[in-house]
Amino acid sequence: MALSPLAPAAFPELPIVAGVRLAVGQCGIKYQGRTDLMVAELAPGTTVAGVFTRSLTASAPVEWCREALPGGRARAVVVNSGNSNAFTGHQGQATVAATVDAVADLLGCAPNQVFVASTGVIGQPMPATLIPQHLPGVIAGLSETVWSEAARAIMTTDTFPKAVSRQAVIGDKTVTINGFCKGSGMIAPDMATMLGFVFTDAAIEAPVLQKLLSDATERSFNCVTVDGDTSTSDTVLLFATGVAGNKPVAKVGAERLRDFRRALDEVMLDLAQLIARDGEGATKFVTLTVAGAESRKAAKRIALTVANSPLVKTAIAGEDANWGRIVAAVGRAGEKADRDRLQIFMGGVQVTADGAALPDYDETPVAAHMKGQNIDIRIELGLGKGAATVWTCDLTHGYIDINGSYRS
Amino acid sequence: MALSPLAPAAFPELPIVAGVRLAVGQCGIKYQGRTDLMVAELAPGTTVAGVFTRSLTASAPVEWCREALPGGRARAVVVNSGNSNAFTGHQGQATVAATVDAVADLLGCAPNQVFVASTGVIGQPMPATLIPQHLPGVIAGLSETVWSEAARAIMTTDTFPKAVSRQAVIGDKTVTINGFCKGSGMIAPDMATMLGFVFTDAAIEAPVLQKLLSDATERSFNCVTVDGDTSTSDTVLLFATGVAGNKPVAKVGAERLRDFRRALDEVMLDLAQLIARDGEGATKFVTLTVAGAESRKAAKRIALTVANSPLVKTAIAGEDANWGRIVAAVGRAGEKADRDRLQIFMGGVQVTADGAALPDYDETPVAAHMKGQNIDIRIELGLGKGAATVWTCDLTHGYIDINGSYRS
Repeated sequence: MALSPLAPAAFPELPIVAGVRLAVGQCGIKYQGRTDLMVAELAPGTTVAGVFTRSLTASAPVEWCREALPGGRARAVVVNSGNSNAFTGHQGQATVAATVDAVADLLGCAPNQVFVASTGVIGQPMPATLIPQHLPGVIAGLSETVWSEAARAIMTTDTFPKAVSRQAVIGDKTVTINGFCKGSGMIAPDMATMLGFVFTDAAIEAPVLQKLLSDATERSFNCVTVDGDTSTSDTVLLFATGVAGNKPVAKVGAERLRDFRRALDEVMLDLAQLIARDGEGATKFVTLTVAGAESRKAAKRIALTVANSPLVKTAIAGEDANWGRIVAAVGRAGEKADRDRLQIFMGGVQVTADGAALPDYDETPVAAHMKGQNIDIRIELGLGKGAATVWTCDLTHGYIDINGSYRS
Repeated sequence: MALSPLAPAAFPELPIVAGVRLAVGQCGIKYQGRTDLMVAELAPGTTVAGVFTRSLTASAPVEWCREALPGGRARAVVVNSGNSNAFTGHQGQATVAATVDAVADLLGCAPNQVFVASTGVIGQPMPATLIPQHLPGVIAGLSETVWSEAARAIMTTDTFPKAVSRQAVIGDKTVTINGFCKGSGMIAPDMATMLGFVFTDAAIEAPVLQKLLSDATERSFNCVTVDGDTSTSDTVLLFATGVAGNKPVAKVGAERLRDFRRALDEVMLDLAQLIARDGEGATKFVTLTVAGAESRKAAKRIALTVANSPLVKTAIAGEDANWGRIVAAVGRAGEKADRDRLQIFMGGVQVTADGAALPDYDETPVAAHMKGQNIDIRIELGLGKGAATVWTCDLTHGYIDINGSYRS
């Protein structure tokens, strides 16, 4: 598959996160000649937080993680690509159990400290022994430095591995946050919308970690959409090893968490945007802001309606400044809007006012903006103070190519 | 534009509807070398019913029709293609007023007996004099027989004209119903989703006509989707000239309306399905039934979520029996579903039970079904008695081609 034209120039330099070791393997689950298994081993005492798909047809790995999460501790996470182990019935549960038990045996930990995630085709049972038989060999290769390999092993239709790193200060300690994720199609909010794994050496208690993760998700992964399709497997897990040695943070409101929160939000937002940049077939990265709505929730709903409109997305692909389709999408979003107060800006240029195009609207600068890779659309409703920004990509022939033949 | 492979073999034979005369014209609104104006003249005493888009950014013609409708009488309807006169501000209202006044003068009727509809690009003002200057010539050519020409004049990206006729008995009179419509993209329910005009020579009072039309719309035009995009201009108007001479029907529940209701429902449903068959880029016509839901409303919401899923639609385009994407769409529809009760049938073949593929599932007959033009998907939720059927088409390169360059 051709590299997305919106891909970053290079994979970032990721430092070590004390207490985290990674390894990858090749099980031949679906893809030949590429890695499809990632294991992260976490230091004893690591705390964990997670957010998952809201789908009612969630996968077996998601169900397992939901059960394990209240324990608050993690020693490992195992992720495979090529098969989502979703809608696989009892066989799917058995596969998860066999994987979890094998890791627990190898690392000497409780099963509920082993987290799992799977991504790929839905509805194809995976033999329970497939991953376990490769685990001893993979775990023997654990290393602190293979972040790029780890990010690559969890890819499906992704065209580039996605990772972000930040540092933050908690008290007198500098801590590191590394995250990587995968996602390209079947991406929509109402949940984490993909697989993401974030690791820090900070010491933060599990309930605090959970609040930080949930807050960050709402303004990052829950604000990107490629095709409006929420998956059965969406999972984001955040692990804190505590090895950095800061005094463990036990309160969400703690002042010394402020810088960490900033850094975590940045990691999550950058990861989410990388997914839109790798949207299946994407050639344009779209930043869409709705302001002046009755509430933030209304603004977000309108923004997502516009961002998911096939007509808006194909117009962007065609470099057509077709703001009429934006008007139509706003009008059907199901939130309050007033045609005659609506102001649309494209590339910073105001296009509409008083229920029509501006009398002296000159499309020249907007047409030039549409030819670029980064498209900015701003919609002012003029009703209240609610605002939200979402990120998406265009809808091109590439999306059809990929999804008309993905499974076969 | 190439003819949809799902088009009917021929345009149907449409009989005369007593009291209806039609004419078409060529104003050069957008398209060169094809007709873009349709006028229907209706006998004095004609009653009218209408349903319109729920969009909050509705077009000027829609606003006009909403104002005129309570009068309950119609002498004419004027429809243009190429420009939707939506989001055109005061200029848009002036254009409607000029058109309506010109027709009222020519036919000698009150302005609120003249209905208008426009379809095409959004946001481009149309000179107020453009249609009026062509009206005298067009009206001079009114004829009882030019149904095919009328259906063609209202097309935009449609690849074939769409019309249906039925007869029914009211008391001792046989009445005729002719309808035609246009629609291809920007098609989604939550309203009429396109332009449709239905004419009968029956005598039916306006409030009764309105109830018949609203009921029929709910199970026809509100059950087709091409891309989930509701337009600013969706309009269906039903006119009853009364020339057939049956005793005017004044009660919705009248027993003698039964056959007319059946015939009208058939006209509306056939018209709606023709739109899905002409979905932009369509190569497959999809009938999607959800049964066993908690309510009809829940069934319809789930059915539309599946029908609008880009992943499901591209899989169908690729002739891939990818039922996993159906599972995912059901799971995110926002209505109650139980993964382990879900039964999916494709082409009549049961695929899933107990939260997984059937143990002896053989994809051979399903793969053969997917290669056909008519795709049947049935989803049994096993929760209640709610059921709904919707119709859609696949998502192909053709859709991208058409919508990446429609306006420019």
